[in-house]
Amino acid sequence: MAITKYPAKHNAAKVAANLGLSEGLVYLKGDILKERHDTDVELTFRQESNFYYLTGFAEHDAHVIYNLKTQKLTLLPYRLPDDHIMWMGMPPTEAELLAKYDVDEIVWSTDLVSAINNSGASTLYALHESDVPKDISLKANTDLLKEAIVNARLYKSAYEIEVMRKINHISSNAHVALMKAAKNCQSEVELDALFRYETARFGARAQAYEPIVGVGVNAATLHYGRNSASFNGNYDQLCLVDAGAELGCYASDITRTFPLNGKYAGDAKTLYSIVLDMQKAVLSALKPGVQWEDMHRLAAKISVEGLQKAGLLKAEFTVQEMLEKHVAAVCFPHGLGHGIGLDVHDVGGYPIGVQRIQEPGIRYLRMRRQLEAGFVVTVEPGIYFTKFILDEAKSNAEISKYFNWDVVERFSKLGGVRIEDCVVITETGIDNLTIAPKEMAEIEAIMA
Amino acid sequence: MAITKYPAKHNAAKVAANLGLSEGLVYLKGDILKERHDTDVELTFRQESNFYYLTGFAEHDAHVIYNLKTQKLTLLPYRLPDDHIMWMGMPPTEAELLAKYDVDEIVWSTDLVSAINNSGASTLYALHESDVPKDISLKANTDLLKEAIVNARLYKSAYEIEVMRKINHISSNAHVALMKAAKNCQSEVELDALFRYETARFGARAQAYEPIVGVGVNAATLHYGRNSASFNGNYDQLCLVDAGAELGCYASDITRTFPLNGKYAGDAKTLYSIVLDMQKAVLSALKPGVQWEDMHRLAAKISVEGLQKAGLLKAEFTVQEMLEKHVAAVCFPHGLGHGIGLDVHDVGGYPIGVQRIQEPGIRYLRMRRQLEAGFVVTVEPGIYFTKFILDEAKSNAEISKYFNWDVVERFSKLGGVRIEDCVVITETGIDNLTIAPKEMAEIEAIMA
Repeated sequence: MAITKYPAKHNAAKVAANLGLSEGLVYLKGDILKERHDTDVELTFRQESNFYYLTGFAEHDAHVIYNLKTQKLTLLPYRLPDDHIMWMGMPPTEAELLAKYDVDEIVWSTDLVSAINNSGASTLYALHESDVPKDISLKANTDLLKEAIVNARLYKSAYEIEVMRKINHISSNAHVALMKAAKNCQSEVELDALFRYETARFGARAQAYEPIVGVGVNAATLHYGRNSASFNGNYDQLCLVDAGAELGCYASDITRTFPLNGKYAGDAKTLYSIVLDMQKAVLSALKPGVQWEDMHRLAAKISVEGLQKAGLLKAEFTVQEMLEKHVAAVCFPHGLGHGIGLDVHDVGGYPIGVQRIQEPGIRYLRMRRQLEAGFVVTVEPGIYFTKFILDEAKSNAEISKYFNWDVVERFSKLGGVRIEDCVVITETGIDNLTIAPKEMAEIEAIMA
Repeated sequence: MAITKYPAKHNAAKVAANLGLSEGLVYLKGDILKERHDTDVELTFRQESNFYYLTGFAEHDAHVIYNLKTQKLTLLPYRLPDDHIMWMGMPPTEAELLAKYDVDEIVWSTDLVSAINNSGASTLYALHESDVPKDISLKANTDLLKEAIVNARLYKSAYEIEVMRKINHISSNAHVALMKAAKNCQSEVELDALFRYETARFGARAQAYEPIVGVGVNAATLHYGRNSASFNGNYDQLCLVDAGAELGCYASDITRTFPLNGKYAGDAKTLYSIVLDMQKAVLSALKPGVQWEDMHRLAAKISVEGLQKAGLLKAEFTVQEMLEKHVAAVCFPHGLGHGIGLDVHDVGGYPIGVQRIQEPGIRYLRMRRQLEAGFVVTVEPGIYFTKFILDEAKSNAEISKYFNWDVVERFSKLGGVRIEDCVVITETGIDNLTIAPKEMAEIEAIMA
């Protein structure tokens, strides 16, 4: 499938169907161009995701109106003042905008209020009170639109899936580039810079989130973002890279963990195998109808089995008992994964009324709902040796007794391992968008 | 000179000297960590420049207090909540912070109000009303601090100059990398990505501004930032690269213009020579006591002489007449350059009471003052063929008569040329921080 014009009208119709109203205007305000503090240094512009969903338009200071009765989608771009043209270039004409974007009408943003007031509609549906334009004669409603958009964005269209496949391929290839380069690099910052380069040069100029590149114990800081440590000549360390670029505002989110010297060996091999087993068990179980929290619990179970087999957890206790005591959360302290789309942690994780499970580890789960075809989720189990958490566990007699602390100590220098893919839930299972290799033999071959 | 601990106390003392007060607190609020729209996607953090100037501290949600009476500098870092440690890592201790930063005291930001109220001072000097912490017993003054900081930041210390030299060298080397890579690239986006890579991998992870990479006519859009055009196999085009990374919050700002095929020839060679002459004339004239607007006028004069010699301006008119009619602004429509430091367009361009000169071109000048030793400025003359401006000039009989429009038309496809260096004003002249080559023969040798 070729990626052509962004299907804004298709998305607007989905939102309208969720609203189920016979008349009114859906109104969204695009993000404005901002400057750094009290300076004139422009911040990198990134369109607001909901606005992008209804327009595919990534320029600043625009508006969009969708008329629920006439189904007319109107894009209102910012009108560049004449004296800015020498700095910013000639703006596109209405005809050029209509040819490029899937909208019915172009109205300059200076005519926003009249476009709303002359629409014949009685109600304007907006996300926030602060978005509602002043001087409009319609009544404003900010109660309904958010859920209507969330429930549209949750189900990815074929178009969206193809964009996400493309950015997953670009990011996957960048992960491979890092594996190949690692032995010739001296520090995390070089790998961080290389990831950005290997995505940006293929047109993915923005990262979906700040990359995490952590070697050794740095991998045990879950949101490590300093990426500044030198390898100090030690290539017998694991390197965790959690990085994904975005394309047309769609995110990718991929984690790979590889030894800097290209050889999985000893405890590192054992640890990696457990995490890979966790991920594969979940990927095999995913399909419509499955509860996401059950997938988290499945990964937790595999982790406890693996850690017991490897000697980190004592053999005398049952896996069941250890799971009931939340032992898994000591080494797997975060959630299994999350929805992904226009945002890396996408909308719709918790349906209205559904609460987080207040238990260790699983309380960080960013999604709790039954999976359906068209959802795109990340599956990112991990095992970490985080000093702060281990110290807490050690001092808690209820938890401490399950661990062989000498073995944990031995593994601790590894830092941690995480493996993360982005997958589409299909009618029968999954479509894995991530193509970066994760089998140890594959990665070793690439790094050889 | 080794770049060691950031001299925060030296800077605080400079600000205090400008304030000339015997007591009171200088208070600055560091920038807070922000998220994108309604999401949890953290935006790249960049410290507010004035805060950095008084601390050298680049972490979010911090405060700083300088006691004018005791000369004690107190840094108040954000205290990471315990349940964030697994995500963010162990925070540094007070002792570690004191060892790393040039401050007298560390107080956690949770104790900000008591640190202010117990200081014994009567007045708190802040930049903005909105910065002033609630519940303080001191009176607040927001009238004096800004000018005191501006007049400190304007004069760069030896430390600051060395940081700026280092980032100029990193960015200069990146420009050279682009020259070398150009003939093997297919589009602007690849050069943009390469610039970011070649700076980031040496530790300069942020750009001082969004890079501009424009080939052919794109170079005529002064703030072109799309950087997305394909070369379409045409390497007989000029490529303008205006890009500079930042290091420790200090900016660089460098422009080079080179032919994609590595050979300056014909009209491109003529055009480049004129701009290089403009820049060299200014660099030779710069020294303390010189008025910045006179430097702009000097560059304008050289441009008119050059364009007349090259046949774009008619031979029958005097240079003096054409300058009086502002003919220079048609092809050199922006200001000559600006102060640079913690911001790419640094503070202090216009002393209080000094107005912009309301004439074409020069009205965009970002600085109008007598140069002094310790200023760092960019010198960035350019000549462009911007359709929008040329059309205006053509339709203005007063201006149109000076041009040979057929020759202008022939040059127009070149887009434009700009050459930009960062230089320190010294006691006797300048110290040019930028080392990227700009002589045509040097660039041709690099690209061969």
